Amino acid sequence: MTAAPLQDTRFRLSEEQARELAQAYGTPLYVVDEGHFRQRIQQYYEGFRAASPKGELSFASKANSTVALLKIAYQEGCSIDVASEGELRAALMAGVPASACHLHGNNKQESEIQFAVEQGIGMIVLDNFEEIELFGRMKALVEEKGVKLVIRLAPGVDPVTHAKISTGQADTKFGFNIVDGSGEKALKRTMELGLPTIGFHCHVGSQLLDPEAQISGGELIAKFAADMKANHGFETTYLNVGGGLGVMYTEKDVPMSHAEYCKAIVAAVTKALEGTGLDPKLAQEPGRSLIAESGVTLYRVGVVKTVPAKERGTRTYVCVDGGLSDNPRPALYGSKYTVELVSPSRSADASPVTVSGKHCETDKLFEDIQLPSDVQAGDLIQVLCTGAYNSSMASNYNRYQRPATALIRKDGSFSLVQRRDTWEEMLAREIVPEGLV
Amino acid sequence: MTAAPLQDTRFRLSEEQARELAQAYGTPLYVVDEGHFRQRIQQYYEGFRAASPKGELSFASKANSTVALLKIAYQEGCSIDVASEGELRAALMAGVPASACHLHGNNKQESEIQFAVEQGIGMIVLDNFEEIELFGRMKALVEEKGVKLVIRLAPGVDPVTHAKISTGQADTKFGFNIVDGSGEKALKRTMELGLPTIGFHCHVGSQLLDPEAQISGGELIAKFAADMKANHGFETTYLNVGGGLGVMYTEKDVPMSHAEYCKAIVAAVTKALEGTGLDPKLAQEPGRSLIAESGVTLYRVGVVKTVPAKERGTRTYVCVDGGLSDNPRPALYGSKYTVELVSPSRSADASPVTVSGKHCETDKLFEDIQLPSDVQAGDLIQVLCTGAYNSSMASNYNRYQRPATALIRKDGSFSLVQRRDTWEEMLAREIVPEGLV
Repeated sequence: MTAAPLQDTRFRLSEEQARELAQAYGTPLYVVDEGHFRQRIQQYYEGFRAASPKGELSFASKANSTVALLKIAYQEGCSIDVASEGELRAALMAGVPASACHLHGNNKQESEIQFAVEQGIGMIVLDNFEEIELFGRMKALVEEKGVKLVIRLAPGVDPVTHAKISTGQADTKFGFNIVDGSGEKALKRTMELGLPTIGFHCHVGSQLLDPEAQISGGELIAKFAADMKANHGFETTYLNVGGGLGVMYTEKDVPMSHAEYCKAIVAAVTKALEGTGLDPKLAQEPGRSLIAESGVTLYRVGVVKTVPAKERGTRTYVCVDGGLSDNPRPALYGSKYTVELVSPSRSADASPVTVSGKHCETDKLFEDIQLPSDVQAGDLIQVLCTGAYNSSMASNYNRYQRPATALIRKDGSFSLVQRRDTWEEMLAREIVPEGLV
Repeated sequence: MTAAPLQDTRFRLSEEQARELAQAYGTPLYVVDEGHFRQRIQQYYEGFRAASPKGELSFASKANSTVALLKIAYQEGCSIDVASEGELRAALMAGVPASACHLHGNNKQESEIQFAVEQGIGMIVLDNFEEIELFGRMKALVEEKGVKLVIRLAPGVDPVTHAKISTGQADTKFGFNIVDGSGEKALKRTMELGLPTIGFHCHVGSQLLDPEAQISGGELIAKFAADMKANHGFETTYLNVGGGLGVMYTEKDVPMSHAEYCKAIVAAVTKALEGTGLDPKLAQEPGRSLIAESGVTLYRVGVVKTVPAKERGTRTYVCVDGGLSDNPRPALYGSKYTVELVSPSRSADASPVTVSGKHCETDKLFEDIQLPSDVQAGDLIQVLCTGAYNSSMASNYNRYQRPATALIRKDGSFSLVQRRDTWEEMLAREIVPEGLV
């Protein structure tokens, strides 16, 4: 096992834990450490409240909506950000009251909005003019249920991250542009309709290691709030600056600490609000930065194969019992991960290998990974920092069962919190019509 | 609707079909046309048998393992290629006898192999030396069940396609290299062990519009078979040259016809076998090229939003009620698709739009799509050529329900063949442990 650098905040399994977990639940297996996850939330909250005493965190459940984890996030004081009816249903199953949830989406279905309002969702983030008109028509119910509305703004900043997870630039499907006047028009319309709008929201992107874009985004929506007070007398009482703080996928990714980040973004917002008399509750919406580092994926090594390779001479493939279906991020975003052998150290020699999955597809999951040169079938390996966007993005591609998720409890015991798919349920959606000849 | 070019072989819905299907089953919806799918198989078979009378097609079920479709493929004379226990279970549910299936995989689990052999699978494609030894240990059962073995070869050709779906180069996790002597070593070992090996297999890649790589692959494994007869007296009776023929995702993708392709590849193999006395059954393993063009995805347009965009001035987002979770291919491979409005023609003006999904992610599904400039909420659009690797790769990301699949029967009626996920089953894997406080 590679020695952890001092600033490495990622959870990793001990050899004993890995062996026991593999024995108890099989592999591949997602594992989340309860204590680590709780501590990440507590640290983020401490940093946030030090800078902004009313600060509120909303856990972006798209990162991982395992019900037990939503329950933990809520217990630690987070509200729950949901992006669909399904994510809201998961939060409700976790015992989170609807009033502690807020609903996002660039193309919410009317049925989704109806469901959320009927459940008494705390907040809905408005994304387009059609929605505003819909809420105008639903005004009585919205008021009866105490639902608050927030306007999502596209502040027009270009974060430095992968284009697919960048959302704050002007050219985006999300929200109302500040630059072209749509944001102001949206507010005016909600005011005309007398809707219970309380403030503004932005989210500029994900896995940002340099927080400049979020700080700009926060500053721009705060300035917008100031302008809206000046132009329309609108009193912003809630300002959500989104999430997006990066995590340590590999040692090359060194994110700012939660505390430093909170200090910087709160300072920018506070400065922009100076002299306006506005004192909104500040909110943030982290997902990945709360849960990613608390989770690992445990695989068992199967075939190890060394083959001729152009330029490099040979390449060694270390094939594991999962792949694209349980972690699509390398294929989707070219994401890199830290991969470690969880076994007693045998060979001192390490050499670069390609860790591949078992799909009928060239799923080079992780390339140029240093593993002991005697890695062999039966060994367990752990991939760090897979708590976010692994379980939630998993598929049944090649009709593999999606892995289970085990939670390591604070007392060190294990609980299964999401079980593997069963064969029965994987075929339950199939219908062979009569007379198919 | 864009006029179809003459050589366009893709299925598309009429306006009436689209409206009725959306009404009956909701959107997003995968739709497959039974007659079109049967005809694609028949055409491929005709072309293949004209060139090689014993030719056998095996449907690569990873492309789409909807059970009713596997049944159709089998009815049309295909054997079924499965890459996992799950895919084999789907074939069995379709009523396909195990003897008409063959199992692939670079890292098959021992339990998977055991299950397949016990079911009496027709053929297993050997991928590595560990497997050969395992079959040595299982020899009695393998013989009792009549399982045949085939050796997968990496012929060392580099096809021109996306690197993620290229599998025939020497540097691959799949199979035994010819170049470095592994292929010959594998054959010798199966002969020493007295295993029922009948021949060889290769698969060089997918979505190949220029069939040069497959032809080279076929030629190389045929030459290898000739060498193995000369060197070891091994009589090859089965030669599988894989699949990989491209399909028309957009009008820019013009694949060779099935007939021409079969003619070319059979000629290359036949030439390489000349004078050897070998007359193996030739097999091919198409997936995408049989099913992709028979399927479309039907979406309903929600929000249409025009926003400022760098360089181009503005961009119009047409947001549909699906996305990354029902078609990950644009995000995974940068895949392009043909997208058509299914509505009475209204405006003569068409302008380029970005068709986006509803995920909490920048899922620009389809960019620079020409749609009538008055496209609006409620309109139906169809994405052509989504019969392959859409349903099979779908996820519940953002806790969306995976779409249903409807089959248009030969008489024009509709049958549901895969239903949408239910909320109950989407939460059935969740466990909230006692005492989570």
